[in-house]
Amino acid sequence: MAPSHPPQPLDLPRLTQAQAPLTQAVDVINERGETEQVHIPAERALTVYVDRRELVTLMTLGAHPELLVLGYLRNQRLVDSVFDIESITVDWEVNAAAVRTRHGIARIEERTASKVVTTGCGQGSVFGGLMDEVDRIELPQAQLTQAQLYGLVNAIRLKETTYKSAGSVHGCALFRGEDMLVFVEDVGRHNAIDTIAGWMWMNPEAPSAAPSTQAGQTDTASFQPMGGADKVFYTTGRLTSEMVIKSAQMGVPIVVSRSGMTQMGHAVAQQLGLCAIGRATNRRFVCYAGAHRLVLQPELA
Amino acid sequence: MAPSHPPQPLDLPRLTQAQAPLTQAVDVINERGETEQVHIPAERALTVYVDRRELVTLMTLGAHPELLVLGYLRNQRLVDSVFDIESITVDWEVNAAAVRTRHGIARIEERTASKVVTTGCGQGSVFGGLMDEVDRIELPQAQLTQAQLYGLVNAIRLKETTYKSAGSVHGCALFRGEDMLVFVEDVGRHNAIDTIAGWMWMNPEAPSAAPSTQAGQTDTASFQPMGGADKVFYTTGRLTSEMVIKSAQMGVPIVVSRSGMTQMGHAVAQQLGLCAIGRATNRRFVCYAGAHRLVLQPELA
Repeated sequence: MAPSHPPQPLDLPRLTQAQAPLTQAVDVINERGETEQVHIPAERALTVYVDRRELVTLMTLGAHPELLVLGYLRNQRLVDSVFDIESITVDWEVNAAAVRTRHGIARIEERTASKVVTTGCGQGSVFGGLMDEVDRIELPQAQLTQAQLYGLVNAIRLKETTYKSAGSVHGCALFRGEDMLVFVEDVGRHNAIDTIAGWMWMNPEAPSAAPSTQAGQTDTASFQPMGGADKVFYTTGRLTSEMVIKSAQMGVPIVVSRSGMTQMGHAVAQQLGLCAIGRATNRRFVCYAGAHRLVLQPELA
Repeated sequence: MAPSHPPQPLDLPRLTQAQAPLTQAVDVINERGETEQVHIPAERALTVYVDRRELVTLMTLGAHPELLVLGYLRNQRLVDSVFDIESITVDWEVNAAAVRTRHGIARIEERTASKVVTTGCGQGSVFGGLMDEVDRIELPQAQLTQAQLYGLVNAIRLKETTYKSAGSVHGCALFRGEDMLVFVEDVGRHNAIDTIAGWMWMNPEAPSAAPSTQAGQTDTASFQPMGGADKVFYTTGRLTSEMVIKSAQMGVPIVVSRSGMTQMGHAVAQQLGLCAIGRATNRRFVCYAGAHRLVLQPELA
C-alpha cells in the first residue's frame, strides 16, 4: 500500500493573455457614392491543439482566446475540471492555441467524432446522448426579481461595446442579480458563452475561498470555481436549444435575451425548470418558462 | 472496347415534401404579470443518414428539410452533382432524413472527420484546405445597380415571414436583380443558405433548358441547375467569413445584408472580388468590397 500524501496543490492553468486588435478600419462606399471609414469586428481563425493534436478551429473576435479555449473544452465535456489543464498558450502570429493537459483527454477521437450542427455547432446521435445528459441536470433553486431584471437589462444597455460600435458581434454576460460579473462579445454566441464558461472556471466563487498555500499555487481543496446557482445569463441572440442547454450545463438557471425563443429551447427550458426571459428591452419582456423563478413586480413596468 | 451508349437519363433526386408546423403557440407572462400567447418558431433536430450511415444532426425550423439536406451535402462538398443523389426521404415522426446516393460517398469518414466551428459550423485544419479551395474560386462577372439593390431590399421588407411573426429566425433569399427567386428562413443562417443551395440544384437555370425525355425523367445533358452568375444573396445576419465563402462556393458574386461585416468576411470578399453590401436598410447601405460590381446611382439615395 502506497503511503498516503496530502493532495498536491495544483496550479490553475497557466494562460497567456494574447492580444489582437478587436476591430479593423475599412473603407466603404455608401449610398451617396462617398467613401467613408467604418470599423468592423475582427474574425480570426484560432486552431486549437490539445497535447499537440489538432482538435478544432474556432472563429472568434479574439478578445479572450484562452478563456474561449478553456470554456470550449469544458462545454464539450472533454475536460472535467479546470485542474486537468496545465496551460493554454495562444499565439496570434500563427493563429494557434496550444493546450497542455495534465493527464491527456481519454478517448478524444471517439468523443469528437460525430456532429450535430445546431444554430451554432454540435454533434450526431450524440444528439440523443446530449438530450439524455440534459435530462439528468438538476438546476439549483434561484430567483430573480423584476427590479433586478430591469437592472441587468439596463446594465447591458449602458455598456460600451464592440456590439454597438461595430454591430456585427454577439454579446453574452453573466450576472449575479443585477451585478454584471463578466461581459463577453464574440462573432458567435456559442463562443461568447464558452468564454464565460472558461472565465467561471478560472474565477473563484468567493475570493476568500481560495487561500494561496504558496505563491502562485491554489489549494484545490478549497478553490471553488464560480458556480451558476445564483447567476443569470444574458445573451443578445435568440434563446435556442443550444443556449438553454449550455446554460443548464453550466448550472445557471436563468437566461435573459432581448430576442425571442425557439420551440426546442422552450421545451428544454420547461423540462429543466430553467427560467427563460426573452424580448427583454426597456421595461418589456416575456417569460417563456420557469416563471416560478421570476418574482413579478408589475408595478415597475 | 465497350460499345458506346447515349448517356442514360437520370432522375433528379426523389424528394419527399415532409411538412411540420413552423411555429408553436406558447403561453408566456409579460411585464405586467399577464399571461399572453405568443408564437415561437419551431426548432427541430433532423438527423441525416446517408446510405444508412448517420452523418449529422441539423437543427432546423423545418420548412424545407429535403432541400436543406441536399444543400448541406452540396456545401460540405460531399456530393458533386445533384444526380449523385437518388432520394431524400424525411420523416418528422422520427426526426430523420434518409439519403440514398447512387454511388456512395467516397471517403466519407475522412471527409467528415475534422471540425472548424465557425460562427455557424465548419471543420479543422481543413480550415487551411478550405482557404486553399476558396483561393481557386473565380467568380463570374456580374453587376447590380443601386436601383436593383433598393428593389431587393424592399422585396425583403414586404415579404410576410416567420421572421417578423416570431422574431427568432434568420432569412436568406436568392435574387436575380430585384426579382426574388426563393426565400428561406431557418433558425440558423447556414441552414438557410444550405437550403438555397439545395433549391438551386433542383431548379433549372432556365425552364426551357430541361426538356423531359420521358415522364418524370430529365435529360441530364441539358439540365443546368441554377447557377450563381447573375444572382444576389440576401441574408438577415452578419456577413461573416462563412457566409462569404458559401456564397462564393455557390458561384454567387454579390451578397447583401442589413447587418454588418466581419474582418475575415471582408478579407475573403476582397480576395474573391465578391461584392459585399451591408447595413442595407431603407435607402442606406455600405459597400465593403467588390464595389466594381455595384453600379452607383446616388441620386436615388
